[in-house]
Amino acid sequence: MLKTPFPLSEVYRLLEPGPVVMVTTACKGRTNIMTMSWHTMIEFEPPLVGCVISNRNYSFGNLESTGECVINIPTVDLAKKVVGCGNCSGRKVDKFKKYNLTPVSASCVKAPLIDECYANLECKIVDRKLVAKYNFFILEAITAWIDKSQKNPQTIHHQGKGTFRVDGETIKLPSKMK
Amino acid sequence: MLKTPFPLSEVYRLLEPGPVVMVTTACKGRTNIMTMSWHTMIEFEPPLVGCVISNRNYSFGNLESTGECVINIPTVDLAKKVVGCGNCSGRKVDKFKKYNLTPVSASCVKAPLIDECYANLECKIVDRKLVAKYNFFILEAITAWIDKSQKNPQTIHHQGKGTFRVDGETIKLPSKMK
Repeated sequence: MLKTPFPLSEVYRLLEPGPVVMVTTACKGRTNIMTMSWHTMIEFEPPLVGCVISNRNYSFGNLESTGECVINIPTVDLAKKVVGCGNCSGRKVDKFKKYNLTPVSASCVKAPLIDECYANLECKIVDRKLVAKYNFFILEAITAWIDKSQKNPQTIHHQGKGTFRVDGETIKLPSKMK
Repeated sequence: MLKTPFPLSEVYRLLEPGPVVMVTTACKGRTNIMTMSWHTMIEFEPPLVGCVISNRNYSFGNLESTGECVINIPTVDLAKKVVGCGNCSGRKVDKFKKYNLTPVSASCVKAPLIDECYANLECKIVDRKLVAKYNFFILEAITAWIDKSQKNPQTIHHQGKGTFRVDGETIKLPSKMK
């Protein structure tokens, strides 16, 4: 997929709707992919993202020790792979291989981008104050990429237990909101 | 709307998809409504919700001083009111009156439920550690209500600047995920 840089000031527009994302990490030559829905924007610019990554997950250790990850945003055509990645552990499985996903080198972090995702946010941890108590990390997106050819990407939203709502209609209302 | 109690263990299924919500507060006899999209689940049970409520908002002071609020989840038919509430301040306007919304007494907090919303979560602040730095509150949902007659509520997801994606198709995939 041809990706172009995406302005950091607009990153909130990708995450604020609450899509399921895939977090990639790399540590000691091993990469991993984790499916994640518990995230929120914390600040517009620099774009800060808060997210829960459980210490039961293999990705937790990778993120903790490298301080880096990529947030990859999949569209509905990847739903089966998204669920697959959420149902096995990087301790046992190379998920890029198992799910035939393509790792692409990031520009600022060691974790790879997932090529098949329409947007990728390279992130560094900026606050660990709530990690011990809630596994809650605050990340800063330092570089962002998008596939501009996808004019209306349909993301998916997890309602628990493998049930997802797919993006439907778009509505636009007059608003002063950012 | 007839509301029945909703199990706290299932609250994550309402918020994890990332819908726009309306936060209600009450302080010194004055209520307010704030439109919010920056929230995430933090824990399944008791259900903990992290959210950003800016100190520029009138609701910030209400929440800070009472420690309580209600998270109300609107469906797409309320979209205009949702945007309206996001575009004016409770300092100047009684939003329940202006937008013809109905306040209903909560059972455990002083903030009112918005009757027109299909689900309501009565919340108390449980952690203020990141409030000073990020306006980030951690709330516990202590009581939850739902309108069971709505079998397929369509929530809305803010993409910024008054643009929303409406819930579309539902897909279900075999999953071990909660």
